[in-house]
Amino acid sequence: MSTAAAPRPSPEKIFEALTRYQQTFALKAGIEVDLFTAIGEGANEPAALAKRTQTAERGVRILADYLTIQGFLNKENGKYSLTPDSAVFLDKRSPAYMGAMAEFLVSGQNLDNMQILTASVRKGGTASGIGDNSKPEDERWVNFARSMGSMAVPMAGVLAQMIAPNSGSSGGPIRVLDVAAGHGLYGITVAKILPNVQVTALDWPAVLEVAKENASKAGILDRYATRHGSAFDADLGEGYDYIFITNFLHHFDPPTNEKLLRRFHAALKPGGKTLTVEFVPNPDRVTPPMAAAFSLVMLAHTDSGDAYTFAEYEKMHCAAGFKSCSLHPVADLPQQVVVAEK
Amino acid sequence: MSTAAAPRPSPEKIFEALTRYQQTFALKAGIEVDLFTAIGEGANEPAALAKRTQTAERGVRILADYLTIQGFLNKENGKYSLTPDSAVFLDKRSPAYMGAMAEFLVSGQNLDNMQILTASVRKGGTASGIGDNSKPEDERWVNFARSMGSMAVPMAGVLAQMIAPNSGSSGGPIRVLDVAAGHGLYGITVAKILPNVQVTALDWPAVLEVAKENASKAGILDRYATRHGSAFDADLGEGYDYIFITNFLHHFDPPTNEKLLRRFHAALKPGGKTLTVEFVPNPDRVTPPMAAAFSLVMLAHTDSGDAYTFAEYEKMHCAAGFKSCSLHPVADLPQQVVVAEK
Repeated sequence: MSTAAAPRPSPEKIFEALTRYQQTFALKAGIEVDLFTAIGEGANEPAALAKRTQTAERGVRILADYLTIQGFLNKENGKYSLTPDSAVFLDKRSPAYMGAMAEFLVSGQNLDNMQILTASVRKGGTASGIGDNSKPEDERWVNFARSMGSMAVPMAGVLAQMIAPNSGSSGGPIRVLDVAAGHGLYGITVAKILPNVQVTALDWPAVLEVAKENASKAGILDRYATRHGSAFDADLGEGYDYIFITNFLHHFDPPTNEKLLRRFHAALKPGGKTLTVEFVPNPDRVTPPMAAAFSLVMLAHTDSGDAYTFAEYEKMHCAAGFKSCSLHPVADLPQQVVVAEK
Repeated sequence: MSTAAAPRPSPEKIFEALTRYQQTFALKAGIEVDLFTAIGEGANEPAALAKRTQTAERGVRILADYLTIQGFLNKENGKYSLTPDSAVFLDKRSPAYMGAMAEFLVSGQNLDNMQILTASVRKGGTASGIGDNSKPEDERWVNFARSMGSMAVPMAGVLAQMIAPNSGSSGGPIRVLDVAAGHGLYGITVAKILPNVQVTALDWPAVLEVAKENASKAGILDRYATRHGSAFDADLGEGYDYIFITNFLHHFDPPTNEKLLRRFHAALKPGGKTLTVEFVPNPDRVTPPMAAAFSLVMLAHTDSGDAYTFAEYEKMHCAAGFKSCSLHPVADLPQQVVVAEK
């Protein structure tokens, strides 16, 4: 209808953003009724899907159509099939299944915090009252450990590559401290790839139970030690070759991070390195989109956490005594690795 | 990293969908703190925005960056500016402002219903317990009437065009019944465009108060009558040239709609027409995306409503006694008009 070259202003994007939460809940519902496994196993019409997923035919028809619209299913001649992504990541029979992510990413607590985002914008930090992240919150972090491990594996492979050259030269054991280990899958995956790696995982006791289960499944429990407690005051041990700091520093403000980094610096052997996995936005703070957008998640959930730029990380590391600091982008992953040497 | 031609399966889309609710809450927060008006008025850096919007500088910086990433703001050299869409639709000083939509689209009730979507899929209708839509729910529908009127205006212009040829030929008054009128802006906008249109608006009393306010603002109150009550049992009057049925039939199942359409048929004069504004998916039920996706909204909020295909609407209208039924697509709008003649 418009005769101008530029697109006419339209409320469509605004309407879409205000209804986008529906996409989250639809995918979560698909995961919860195990729709993708049912389709993978051959149920491909509403009646068969209803029977297999114990849903109403009308309900599952509408849900499957919606997930087709969103690109998670195909529909042809009334029959549904899995897309390549859904077959790999949403069919429970797949080893790369990651439907469990929904339980953390769309947890009641995460939703509650997002619902009070306006108050958090006014306050400049989470209005939830539980955002300092220095005390155990078992429900939240055990849920995280149980749900989010699969996301860590590709990046853990990158960490193993970064360690591998050293690994070859000396031949002796490589000691890794995995701080706030959670599911433990950064350290565990590296230990699985590199047989001379010995991991010490630090976290709250309830969370470490999950990490130990994962270490046992991976067959590396004999090279897996644990230390209970907080990165702020636990005895970290010393003489580590590497310290993994994965998705941790974003919870705190820069002075707190400097304090933590000083402790990690002390626990490294001379020449040892921290490998910090983080969302690192460019200095403009609006690119790349996924890393930069993570800042809002920290506003919603923490008192003073953020997605820090590399310049900010460099400053924190320098203040904590590290002699060099560099940024390693990783192809195909939204996070990067900050490497700092003692 | 991939050497194959086809993209390697990636969990990125799944992760994005499971976190997409954040986009909804961020835009809602921007509207609630009136960020867009503040930027429109010239505050373009975090410190100035914090002062103008009574927010924390850190909070508003993170929010404005996020909304830049989502395409609702521009950021250059650290200064924010409005996009064309935001200037027209999100700056309160604009006559086309529609930020109020957030209050209905992201209402607590809508969120609650989406949070129990899995139960609704199992049940085949809303698990909320309040989905029959035949009784007054003032809180929900007064909120709708106050929030969503601006979305109706472009389509109302289309309805006026569809009526206009008749309007010219006879010269006499054209009587329109606006069923479940809500904000009233379909009938009111048409009456504003066509001076010989007389509107009778039907809705619950509390909702009609909003419609009357809007009719008064539009200066057409002298051609605006109201009837209180339900489309199921109110006295509708008779001899109407047109009945507007806008965003109404999607709340009910086909037998209920046939019953309603029989009542509307009786209220029309011979040759009179119903103009039904609806999301009408294609027979595949997965295109066009916006119309087809609306089916999920009805699953979440109603006992047995749906986004019906044209074939389904045609069948309901035939069963109710209409002699013809046709579908009128509308350029640039996600809804279409079903026209049926008595």
